[in-house]
Amino acid sequence: MQTNILNTDTICAIATPHGMGAIAVVRVSGPEAISIVSQLFTQNDLAFDKSKIVANKAYYGHIVDHGELLDEVLVTFFTAPHSFTGEDSAEISVHGSVFIQQKLLQVLIAHGCRMAEAGEFTRRAFVNRKFDLAQAEAIADLISSESEAAHRIAINQLKGGFSKELQMMRSKLLEMTSLMELELDFSEEDVEFADRSQLKALLQETLTHVDKLKDSFRLGNAIKNGIPVAIVGQTNTGKSTLLNALLGEDRAIVSDIAGTTRDTIEETLNINGILYRFIDTAGLRNTDETIEKIGIERSYKKIAEANVIIGMLDATTSYESMLSSAKDIRSKVDLSNQQLILSINKVDTLADQGEALLGDLRLDLNNDDIMVICLSAKHGFGLNDLYNALKHSQPLAAPNATLVTNIRHYEALLHASESLKQVQQGLEINIPTDLISQDLRQALHFLGSITGEITTDEVLGTIFSRFCIGK
Amino acid sequence: MQTNILNTDTICAIATPHGMGAIAVVRVSGPEAISIVSQLFTQNDLAFDKSKIVANKAYYGHIVDHGELLDEVLVTFFTAPHSFTGEDSAEISVHGSVFIQQKLLQVLIAHGCRMAEAGEFTRRAFVNRKFDLAQAEAIADLISSESEAAHRIAINQLKGGFSKELQMMRSKLLEMTSLMELELDFSEEDVEFADRSQLKALLQETLTHVDKLKDSFRLGNAIKNGIPVAIVGQTNTGKSTLLNALLGEDRAIVSDIAGTTRDTIEETLNINGILYRFIDTAGLRNTDETIEKIGIERSYKKIAEANVIIGMLDATTSYESMLSSAKDIRSKVDLSNQQLILSINKVDTLADQGEALLGDLRLDLNNDDIMVICLSAKHGFGLNDLYNALKHSQPLAAPNATLVTNIRHYEALLHASESLKQVQQGLEINIPTDLISQDLRQALHFLGSITGEITTDEVLGTIFSRFCIGK
Repeated sequence: MQTNILNTDTICAIATPHGMGAIAVVRVSGPEAISIVSQLFTQNDLAFDKSKIVANKAYYGHIVDHGELLDEVLVTFFTAPHSFTGEDSAEISVHGSVFIQQKLLQVLIAHGCRMAEAGEFTRRAFVNRKFDLAQAEAIADLISSESEAAHRIAINQLKGGFSKELQMMRSKLLEMTSLMELELDFSEEDVEFADRSQLKALLQETLTHVDKLKDSFRLGNAIKNGIPVAIVGQTNTGKSTLLNALLGEDRAIVSDIAGTTRDTIEETLNINGILYRFIDTAGLRNTDETIEKIGIERSYKKIAEANVIIGMLDATTSYESMLSSAKDIRSKVDLSNQQLILSINKVDTLADQGEALLGDLRLDLNNDDIMVICLSAKHGFGLNDLYNALKHSQPLAAPNATLVTNIRHYEALLHASESLKQVQQGLEINIPTDLISQDLRQALHFLGSITGEITTDEVLGTIFSRFCIGK
Repeated sequence: MQTNILNTDTICAIATPHGMGAIAVVRVSGPEAISIVSQLFTQNDLAFDKSKIVANKAYYGHIVDHGELLDEVLVTFFTAPHSFTGEDSAEISVHGSVFIQQKLLQVLIAHGCRMAEAGEFTRRAFVNRKFDLAQAEAIADLISSESEAAHRIAINQLKGGFSKELQMMRSKLLEMTSLMELELDFSEEDVEFADRSQLKALLQETLTHVDKLKDSFRLGNAIKNGIPVAIVGQTNTGKSTLLNALLGEDRAIVSDIAGTTRDTIEETLNINGILYRFIDTAGLRNTDETIEKIGIERSYKKIAEANVIIGMLDATTSYESMLSSAKDIRSKVDLSNQQLILSINKVDTLADQGEALLGDLRLDLNNDDIMVICLSAKHGFGLNDLYNALKHSQPLAAPNATLVTNIRHYEALLHASESLKQVQQGLEINIPTDLISQDLRQALHFLGSITGEITTDEVLGTIFSRFCIGK
């Protein structure tokens, strides 16, 4: 059931980024949007006649408050339902001084507008069925996209690809549920409207689809928030030097994520359109020192969470030591799910033995899934090999495949998957139809919660509070 | 002579503030603007038919590059000369992700646009005679306005009030010059087309007007950049404590201006819509120490440059010492041009003697132009009295009076004033008409340079390079 909120008030907010620019746009939406903005708008010193408004047309004129000229502006009016929110609305394009932006908001509020809450424009659009909840969330993702890959996922979701897949699954399940519930009405006659073998096939098909979407979250989340790459190795193998070299070489530092612990440093970096999240870890070594042990435990934890592990080896140590270190790292990596790139660092100290070392290591590790490269983090040598290894390490999704990036969607899919499995089990052991139907309804509920066909004010509040003001 | 630049290329830039927001606007202007943007724009997956464009109408659709959907957008086309620049142009309103903004610029450039230089849109508007140079400069001022007062000056200048005043003066002077130059053609006949007494009256009138504008720069500049308020006094009177109290009390810190010298700190603060620039100075005291002497010299210089001087007195010292300090500060202040606010600080250490002290000081200083207040900077006591004193200290300009805020205009007015004075002197001593006419032409040149009737590429380059990109 769609929760319907009556939007009896008119909201306003600055829609463009904070600060000073050539222009800024203030957005107004709600039943009084056109009337409030027209009151403040003049053309050639004449009051604006709102009865003659042409929707979607940009009007040049002045915003005047109590006889005082605030700014020369362009105003575009949009009439319900043909606007972003589905309500009457207006966009005022002003000169981008901070003063004008703030003052215009004050004037609008004095004339009866209310400051919009975070995400309120999008929420109104959702309530007015301009798009579903997954699409609304895609707008927030689109705005915060930091890489081409993240942008592509968000725009696909906005286009409604994900929503359509969910809808298709739901309508099939719904049909089946209705047939089963029809049986309940005729329960004394012991009929089967819903063909059990057909139902089983459909269930398996849907479950496979749901699990595929659910499993895409690992990659989707990695693309959205950066593919986690743990840099591990013994102490003094040059882990931090490598991180610095990566950040120095590529100027595209996107943001600094404060480490959850003081001893791991995370930096995101956009390399060839893909966002990576590099995690520098504490050096590994055998120790009895309690505090250091904790650090090393954390490093192992980071390895477990990463998609890619860069294992640093020190070319200035003996081959035996490097090999033992490599084996130690490999033992912590799940090669079926994770990619290991062994990097022989400090190769500048070797004469020409780098290639030979590579060969030996490959031979001794005896595993084609492990990449081995030579590096000099200090001199920036071999970074391109590392970039290439990173590129190959990531199984790229098909360009138009749906990837789940939102943890709310992931959790709903997880629950839906569990409910569908219960239905399967129920069918196996022939439990009563009403219980099976109940599990099916549960699965439908979870799938429907993603697109917002089933939702509550509380859920909506949580979702939209994460949007920015003005969206 | 207006320098005309042939704008054969099409420029693009982000017009909204930097960073992430709900939406961002990319502006495109030039002969190919409409054709380039239409190529990238689709509606319902169909190519956009640019032959059917309605100017000033916001179209909803998609920006698609090489089959890849970049974003859902609103595009508004403007046709020459009915656009900001006077050229064909388009405004593309996109979702405000940094990625989309950058990518859209890249795509536009790939399709033949060029990144706009700073102020290039406004420069094109000026070249296309959408407004004059003083109005163009008002746009930059408007965008950087940090207070209501600065905003009012800029918007008045943008409306053309200042330009009109200049134009009127110029046309009168021009008429007079033409008559004088006519005399030159008939020089052998010794006729006087230009009535000398009428000319003298006109000159005086124009000179008064020019000087009034020129002198308004002190106030105009103060309003635009903040009214300079020097906080002076002996060491340990609480000057820095006062500055901190002012900044802490009022959260509206606008910006930090790095002191020109390490020993003066400047902070701008918006109090009741007026921008003040507070300058903390080195403590005054008699010293033979060379370095300290330099600091004190600088404090005296800051006093000379300020509009308002807050003289700090220390209530914990003897009355004689306070009085001598007050007299010392007063001796450095030009009371005809500057306002002195004596502040007895640390009044929290006095029992109830604050009022008595105020009375004594007023009496002993014997000057109604000096304001005396009681303060406790440390406890935030008396700050409202200080705000009131500041408000009274500033002779506010009549709301619609033209104030010159631009140093380029100030310098042009200064030169025009000098030239006009030379004309006056020339007329007094009856120097040949051709020399007088030459001085008149000079004055006309300087006045014309303000609105850009006389200008060069170099001047324009300097002016517009100070604009932001996208304006």
